[in-house]
Amino acid sequence: MMKESEARTHKVVFQPGDITCEGVPHGANLLRVALLEGVHINASCGGTGGCGKCRVKIDSGEYEGGRSAKLPDEDFAAGLRLACRVKVMGDLTVTVPEESRMGDAVALTHERRPGPGRALSAQDLEQLVEGWSVDPVVRKYLLELEAPDAGNNINDLDRLKLGLKSRHGIEAVSVDFDVIKDLPTALRSEDWKVTATVVDTARGPKVIQGAPGDGTGDDYSVVLDIGTTSIYAQLLDLSSGETLAQASDYNGQISYGEDVITRIVHARKPEGRRQLQQAVVATINGVVGKVLEKAGIDSCQVSHMVAAGNTTMTHLLTGVDPTYIRIDPYVPAAAFLPPVRAADLGIEACRHVHLYTFPCVSSYVGGDIVSGIIGSGVFRTDKVTLYIDIGTNGEAVVGNREWLVATSCSAGPAFEGGGIRHGMRATRGAIEAVQVEPATGEPHILTIGGRKPLGICGTGIIDAVAELLEAGILEQNGKFNQEAEGEWLRRDQDGQWEYVLVREEYTASGRGDIVITEPDIDNLMRAKGAIFAGVSTLLDSVGMTMEAVEQVYVAGGFGKYLQLDRAAAIGLFPEMDAERFTFVGNGSLLGARLVSFSREMLAAAEQVAKMMTNIELSDNQQCMDEYMAALFFPHTDMQWFPRMERILGKLK
Amino acid sequence: MMKESEARTHKVVFQPGDITCEGVPHGANLLRVALLEGVHINASCGGTGGCGKCRVKIDSGEYEGGRSAKLPDEDFAAGLRLACRVKVMGDLTVTVPEESRMGDAVALTHERRPGPGRALSAQDLEQLVEGWSVDPVVRKYLLELEAPDAGNNINDLDRLKLGLKSRHGIEAVSVDFDVIKDLPTALRSEDWKVTATVVDTARGPKVIQGAPGDGTGDDYSVVLDIGTTSIYAQLLDLSSGETLAQASDYNGQISYGEDVITRIVHARKPEGRRQLQQAVVATINGVVGKVLEKAGIDSCQVSHMVAAGNTTMTHLLTGVDPTYIRIDPYVPAAAFLPPVRAADLGIEACRHVHLYTFPCVSSYVGGDIVSGIIGSGVFRTDKVTLYIDIGTNGEAVVGNREWLVATSCSAGPAFEGGGIRHGMRATRGAIEAVQVEPATGEPHILTIGGRKPLGICGTGIIDAVAELLEAGILEQNGKFNQEAEGEWLRRDQDGQWEYVLVREEYTASGRGDIVITEPDIDNLMRAKGAIFAGVSTLLDSVGMTMEAVEQVYVAGGFGKYLQLDRAAAIGLFPEMDAERFTFVGNGSLLGARLVSFSREMLAAAEQVAKMMTNIELSDNQQCMDEYMAALFFPHTDMQWFPRMERILGKLK
Repeated sequence: MMKESEARTHKVVFQPGDITCEGVPHGANLLRVALLEGVHINASCGGTGGCGKCRVKIDSGEYEGGRSAKLPDEDFAAGLRLACRVKVMGDLTVTVPEESRMGDAVALTHERRPGPGRALSAQDLEQLVEGWSVDPVVRKYLLELEAPDAGNNINDLDRLKLGLKSRHGIEAVSVDFDVIKDLPTALRSEDWKVTATVVDTARGPKVIQGAPGDGTGDDYSVVLDIGTTSIYAQLLDLSSGETLAQASDYNGQISYGEDVITRIVHARKPEGRRQLQQAVVATINGVVGKVLEKAGIDSCQVSHMVAAGNTTMTHLLTGVDPTYIRIDPYVPAAAFLPPVRAADLGIEACRHVHLYTFPCVSSYVGGDIVSGIIGSGVFRTDKVTLYIDIGTNGEAVVGNREWLVATSCSAGPAFEGGGIRHGMRATRGAIEAVQVEPATGEPHILTIGGRKPLGICGTGIIDAVAELLEAGILEQNGKFNQEAEGEWLRRDQDGQWEYVLVREEYTASGRGDIVITEPDIDNLMRAKGAIFAGVSTLLDSVGMTMEAVEQVYVAGGFGKYLQLDRAAAIGLFPEMDAERFTFVGNGSLLGARLVSFSREMLAAAEQVAKMMTNIELSDNQQCMDEYMAALFFPHTDMQWFPRMERILGKLK
Repeated sequence: MMKESEARTHKVVFQPGDITCEGVPHGANLLRVALLEGVHINASCGGTGGCGKCRVKIDSGEYEGGRSAKLPDEDFAAGLRLACRVKVMGDLTVTVPEESRMGDAVALTHERRPGPGRALSAQDLEQLVEGWSVDPVVRKYLLELEAPDAGNNINDLDRLKLGLKSRHGIEAVSVDFDVIKDLPTALRSEDWKVTATVVDTARGPKVIQGAPGDGTGDDYSVVLDIGTTSIYAQLLDLSSGETLAQASDYNGQISYGEDVITRIVHARKPEGRRQLQQAVVATINGVVGKVLEKAGIDSCQVSHMVAAGNTTMTHLLTGVDPTYIRIDPYVPAAAFLPPVRAADLGIEACRHVHLYTFPCVSSYVGGDIVSGIIGSGVFRTDKVTLYIDIGTNGEAVVGNREWLVATSCSAGPAFEGGGIRHGMRATRGAIEAVQVEPATGEPHILTIGGRKPLGICGTGIIDAVAELLEAGILEQNGKFNQEAEGEWLRRDQDGQWEYVLVREEYTASGRGDIVITEPDIDNLMRAKGAIFAGVSTLLDSVGMTMEAVEQVYVAGGFGKYLQLDRAAAIGLFPEMDAERFTFVGNGSLLGARLVSFSREMLAAAEQVAKMMTNIELSDNQQCMDEYMAALFFPHTDMQWFPRMERILGKLK
């Protein structure tokens, strides 16, 4: 069922320096290629063609575009193009002229990047888990029944059951009451041709829908990642195995508190619990509505939904009392929830649609992690794997097909753009990549979708902080280097330091500059410190260090443009061989997809939840010590960061 | 579990004539004893002490009461008492004085009655089915769980499941979502002592309620007989096996039509189906509210409900489309419905309460009949048994533990007081027994509960017609004998003939006389004709006559005061040995009780529904011929009615 991903790639060679990028996807944006490869080209407007700074000369090869109102005709005639407007359509050789390059200081202070950690698309990632096939837990079956007559006037329900048995070998089915109620019309309106939707339950098959005519071709599911901060939805075609559309939004519960603890407190009273459920359901209805609209699918063609979320999110979505999750000894109401009728939760779905939630392990190792372990294939690998999910709640798992140990820590929402003055999710218009010219401190940015900058997302803030550190504009303690004050680093009207990332004129809003503040940086430091401390403590608990880890899977809402060297520069990870790293993007959504496609994966999810051991880090003194030591860029102990040590040493 | 029924009985001897009644229950009403035994004592007011006519002299024995404002002091001093006010408290000898007796003509025309067919109370009837014990499908279990601590912090749901397994041996349970939602509070509010309500489903045990503390002592069920015309409810104590209260009312659907066909037509549109469901549910809420109030039980202490009804009633109650029940080849939507959450139907019950409906056999042999076969023990007997349920839809079953053949016919509501000008259900104030003095045509009546007469119920109208026939006031064709015109038989203002049963002054309403009209009698004739024809055709279909039937069970809403000789007099049954007859009263309620008490009986109900064969009588020419022949009192063919032939012959 797997679609071949677009296989055509090209080679791009940048001059001067003969910097060669292999495997550039067909149609890639040239500015993005350069920036991700560490080739520095000026760009202040986010790659929208607005600043006209990113001029390059294309010496040879096939490409499209490159023209802009900001590029004078004589320059165009001279072969210059705006890199942000160029699509790579073949192997290219590109010269970056002096005036488009960042100052020579770059060459002095920046080491060549080690090359990014692998970033795989979700489509590719499904191949991490081999040997499964599309066989969803909910399936549609076509029945062409005989009309009753005096000699055969058994009731409609038994006629349906006999049809399922004789035609499809499905025996001992139960039938949902809602199906029975309107079965007479369903059977007769297309002359005894009917499509039965059958779900495979733990207690045998169950018919949940009986619709007139042949509806077997229209069989869809919706998968959801219910994050504390963000919610992602995908619409899947269960017949073809394709993803038809995706959408995301902030979790509407945020208005009741940014972290799970505040929300659990709010949910103490039934009214509060109801409000939180309604809030997340409203967001779900929004994103599900979007994917259905994008794909032109009616909600009644959706057969089931799968949601992965942490334990608290799972409780709050389903309306289950989360009170004791936050109270020692941290007991959730349930780890395994039965499928629940989506409409009963307020989700705008057909009555027959059931929502499957992932089983949880404990109060702080939830269904999202189980889903990630499924989606990334850790549950089937022999290699000792570290799986890290970076979100408002950070979780880490170490193990392989035979053992799995998990833990969690509260990172705060910085990686999802939360708690950052101009933070935003990784959607169109978000600054996702930043370079800072060391000589002048001038920033060059790229936005998602090449739109005018709206704000900065998780990868953008990581990039920015890493670049500011390496340019000496930011100190290791997270404070700005006041000696670097100038055009880009300045005080605001209240005397607080801020770094200007985008001038007002280039912003989408046109209302004020987009800046980074010291509180933004502090939030990022706490977030990365929590993750680093959690991982260190987890590994220590199983008697390991990072050395012993054969592969690292990094999941997180910031998508596929997280650069390993930038993450290491701020101390989110140690500096390690890039080959060991795989960015899986939204790991829990990945697992939800697999579970939606395959009942084998659904069973695997329960197995994983059962076998996973949980290490509780709250009140863990070692973890607290690790955290305090990690509140520094990249870390107070530089043994894992030799490259940064060299760079920062040179700055002094 | 069975309670000993009140064992004390007495002997009452009436003089003159030395008429001896054995087995008179302690506390019985003396007028009723006389009337049921065929001892004729004048009574015009229904036994309320209002007319003062039923004077008797008690020669010896123990009794209570007998005084009334209508009894002059000198008569009281002379030892006279009003029979309607006397309670039998010991063996009695009673003289009926000349002036209290009906005319001597009685002795001439009336043969001695053969004695009533047995009339058993529901309590006794449970003994028809031997060897079952109270083991309901829904049971409560007490759990005293250990509180979680850091060393044992499994989630609440798994803690509950482990408790059920270790303490009660219940494994592989599923747990209802509603239980999980509030489980944390349920477990903690009585310090980890909790009562789990567990239902035994076809697919394993399921926890449907988790309530704090020990609630195992408060375990009740409600059983319902959902008739086309009337609805009966009983509240059962599942711990003791006792019946705590009962109530009944007319089915609120009557306002949408008296028969099932009219209602099915009304239900064609979804709005109509909804209206009919709401109507019956409103009645159910009324009667269930009454039984709960009578017993002082909270609705949340009810664990489950069982309803027996015909196929159409079952469809309409559960909101299932009944359209094709009435259309050739008469296919119901379903014969077996899964248990449904009562609250989802609009029934005022706790969320966890599920309603069990009896499985049906076909469109016109429904769950009420299956229930009756269970309740009367026919499914376990070796004797060839005829089971007849007399209601708006009449049904008949013949067979035994090895085979069962059923049929149905539409009798109309006459036996339940419907379609009768002053008809009413068999509740307090209903005239349930009538005697007519042949010399004068004067009626003497008894009402249920000794209340002032409100109207006439099924047994009353049967009694009245039988008496009017035997008194020569009514012709065999159902028309009044105009030569009998006088004080009691008269024309109304429109010239229509009517017989006065109660004068205005003795009625409860005080607004007009209670009368019987020719259309009333016509309705009764059609009703009894349909039953007789149905039974004849059924027996013929299996190559039998009444001779071969070893026992007859008669069920029907008219309760236990139907007199076999009166029923035979109008031709409802042939004249047969009274010993072969048993009146089981409300047979379907009886079966619902058993199924509510015992999961073994629940399984038996499914077996019975599966083994029963259905004979379709619509469009059956033989049945139509039988029906036409039965439209006469007692019948056009007098071979089965030798006694009536003699009596009517003497009248000529």
